[in-house]
Amino acid sequence: MSHKTCVTVWGENRHEKTNPAVTAVYPDGMHQTIAYFLRATGEFTVQTATLDQPENGLSRPVLAASDVLIWWGHLAHEEVDDAIAERIKSRVFEGMGLIVLHSGHHSKIFKSLMGTSCSLKWREANDTERIWNILPSHPIASGVGESFDLAQEEMYGEPFEVPPPDELIFISWFSGGEVFRSGCTWRRGRGRVFFFRPGHETFPTYKHQVAQRVIINAVKWAAQNPLSTTADS
Amino acid sequence: MSHKTCVTVWGENRHEKTNPAVTAVYPDGMHQTIAYFLRATGEFTVQTATLDQPENGLSRPVLAASDVLIWWGHLAHEEVDDAIAERIKSRVFEGMGLIVLHSGHHSKIFKSLMGTSCSLKWREANDTERIWNILPSHPIASGVGESFDLAQEEMYGEPFEVPPPDELIFISWFSGGEVFRSGCTWRRGRGRVFFFRPGHETFPTYKHQVAQRVIINAVKWAAQNPLSTTADS
Amino acid sequence: MSHKTCVTVWGENRHEKTNPAVTAVYPDGMHQTIAYFLRATGEFTVQTATLDQPENGLSRPVLAASDVLIWWGHLAHEEVDDAIAERIKSRVFEGMGLIVLHSGHHSKIFKSLMGTSCSLKWREANDTERIWNILPSHPIASGVGESFDLAQEEMYGEPFEVPPPDELIFISWFSGGEVFRSGCTWRRGRGRVFFFRPGHETFPTYKHQVAQRVIINAVKWAAQNPLSTTADS
Amino acid sequence: MSHKTCVTVWGENRHEKTNPAVTAVYPDGMHQTIAYFLRATGEFTVQTATLDQPENGLSRPVLAASDVLIWWGHLAHEEVDDAIAERIKSRVFEGMGLIVLHSGHHSKIFKSLMGTSCSLKWREANDTERIWNILPSHPIASGVGESFDLAQEEMYGEPFEVPPPDELIFISWFSGGEVFRSGCTWRRGRGRVFFFRPGHETFPTYKHQVAQRVIINAVKWAAQNPLSTTADS
Repeated sequence: MSHKTCVTVWGENRHEKTNPAVTAVYPDGMHQTIAYFLRATGEFTVQTATLDQPENGLSRPVLAASDVLIWWGHLAHEEVDDAIAERIKSRVFEGMGLIVLHSGHHSKIFKSLMGTSCSLKWREANDTERIWNILPSHPIASGVGESFDLAQEEMYGEPFEVPPPDELIFISWFSGGEVFRSGCTWRRGRGRVFFFRPGHETFPTYKHQVAQRVIINAVKWAAQNPLSTTADS
Repeated sequence: MSHKTCVTVWGENRHEKTNPAVTAVYPDGMHQTIAYFLRATGEFTVQTATLDQPENGLSRPVLAASDVLIWWGHLAHEEVDDAIAERIKSRVFEGMGLIVLHSGHHSKIFKSLMGTSCSLKWREANDTERIWNILPSHPIASGVGESFDLAQEEMYGEPFEVPPPDELIFISWFSGGEVFRSGCTWRRGRGRVFFFRPGHETFPTYKHQVAQRVIINAVKWAAQNPLSTTADS
Repeated sequence: MSHKTCVTVWGENRHEKTNPAVTAVYPDGMHQTIAYFLRATGEFTVQTATLDQPENGLSRPVLAASDVLIWWGHLAHEEVDDAIAERIKSRVFEGMGLIVLHSGHHSKIFKSLMGTSCSLKWREANDTERIWNILPSHPIASGVGESFDLAQEEMYGEPFEVPPPDELIFISWFSGGEVFRSGCTWRRGRGRVFFFRPGHETFPTYKHQVAQRVIINAVKWAAQNPLSTTADS
Repeated sequence: MSHKTCVTVWGENRHEKTNPAVTAVYPDGMHQTIAYFLRATGEFTVQTATLDQPENGLSRPVLAASDVLIWWGHLAHEEVDDAIAERIKSRVFEGMGLIVLHSGHHSKIFKSLMGTSCSLKWREANDTERIWNILPSHPIASGVGESFDLAQEEMYGEPFEVPPPDELIFISWFSGGEVFRSGCTWRRGRGRVFFFRPGHETFPTYKHQVAQRVIINAVKWAAQNPLSTTADS
């Protein structure tokens, strides 16, 4: 019997409690919206975790059971316990996939895996974002088409201070005049890391069908950890 | 109903006819030995093609039906028709996987896809080759272990004049004192290309269980062409 | 006494003779405009060559004396002699730098070095192009600033069918909604290859100070062939 | 007047004080041997720093004046102050070059810049190491020849748990049967990082002429920080 990929969706879950504009879009929190569309595929076992839970929701058993961890944080990166960030990193080295969304670029775990500042330009406005699929043969780009538009998004601009990605899948165009490497992969130890840019908390990005498709694809890609398959080989 | 990956194993099939030492090892030709262990997995539909067939065995329908092409050539690279090499290249750009073995490094198709001379050092002797698995999390390295030995092999040494590989999976150590990047991947168009070094015609390399495992893994990896999967997504 | 870098600027030089709009911008040909600003630095020995000269202007002695070749072609890629394209390729493998401009992406020499179709989207219009400097520490980006604008340019859009560049230096934003990897490097043999996107024949791009700066930087970068320096080391 | 590259050679300087076998080879410490051959070129301003100095020898003014930092540590990685490691990292992001030698692979600064465990296999024995030059056109490989031998060295073996290097320049062959990626580069922020494998404390590796040549080349390469050159451009 085959093993269903186990995904843990981690949400900082602060904006949702304090900013009515965010609550209006994501009444149960962004992590629940993401968990919802992942569950709807019928292909994954999905759990959620949030900052304010004990051990930031990421106890050893939770991480040990996670094939893939999805991360959204913004306001409270510093409140994530250093030991928890180290624990996540060890699990990535063992082969857990990690999908870092949007403002997670400044999270402890992402900066620590990249070894760079992970800084970027940004502008909170009403830019339209067009995401170009520059590597259509990559599994994460499957079904995406040549580009897709998000009517309103926060702008992130280059230079994005990360190591050159192993694979560059998406580049964003913003109506205000900027570009950004919006879909990037890196290997770290046995783990696969994917950064996906969109997802400002006041916009319904994670309800957009193509953004959902990218995240679903990314979970499948990030879960391809041969550790779990060598046993029967 | 799922589609079985279709593999075409192309063999130059000249050494086997003219050199008794080769015939002794591969009485039906190397391509048949490779086809045999691929068929034995039950996971692929396998056909073979050889240089001396019409259109070098690679008519348009044959290539159109191939998800992955495996290539072994050595003596007669120049006898492959230019138009056939171009036809293969177009299929790679469309998404067909290509696995180039050993002396295929100097084939028209490989040189044309690399854009370099693809030259290397070599010594026909009785070196022992130890192949180190430097990217154990890669699907092509699944089940390979930390290294494996081939008791006798032709030596290939650096510098190997190829573009820097997208992924470097294996490095060979030779008892005579050389090293070689023995397992390398590149993307070309929508197609995935894998070069695997071992396979001198006078040694039973393609009967070695781990070498077979690598080729089986590589076929699965090279067949992951999202073109064929987007239809039903 | 130190050796001055020898640059050969190759121009197809057809638009300039037949299209008054081009002649108006580049009365002596684009190659002469490029040669002019390179000479003005006082740092290079500069010569020009054009398609309609014997051997397409690239005799063996001309290439042997070239540390760097700059290439602009568009209408007549097929008229470049196959043997001349091969000769250039051999020189690149020996260490000659190659800078391919704009529509040179479909030249024989560039396609042959890339091993891919080198195709892209395009639209001949009046887009504004903003070129973002995403690798400011690269020598080719020296003095470029965070971005620069070309008021009018032809649009080139992704996907650009090239192998993943070794270094991605510039990404273009177009007012019409597209993005493009506009400054890319690759190694081929001992030679360094740089592709620089801008330069539609009806716009004065090569008179733009920052575009000139990029090309000057690229010549210095592409000329760093250790072959010429090992003698005295 | 041109600026001479300022190099700081950092040595842990513990083995040299406690192990007579090391003192015999490097009576003044490895850092002094390295500083000596760098000074002998006449091309650099060279200073040294050691662990037991205040601020581990790396005060803000010392780092601010360093174009390149060379790092050798082994026994006492944990004794380097976290704040000093962070300070070095910031300087790398600003453009300082960093050359990490041998057992420095497990230093705080290197692990932090890589984002991985940086682990490897090792065996303290009398292996012969042959270092193959696989990227002869790289400035760091200038004058190195196709390979060079170190008669006795500690063995380091794959897998080396680092991100895929931007450039792979050297691969080592060990008489005991292992291979290792011995010369690797990565960009981090504006800084250039080079890891060079050889240099076990009981062997006179840093007195070997070709090893010295590699380090001299690497200093020149790592110092190419356009920040310092943009002012006058």
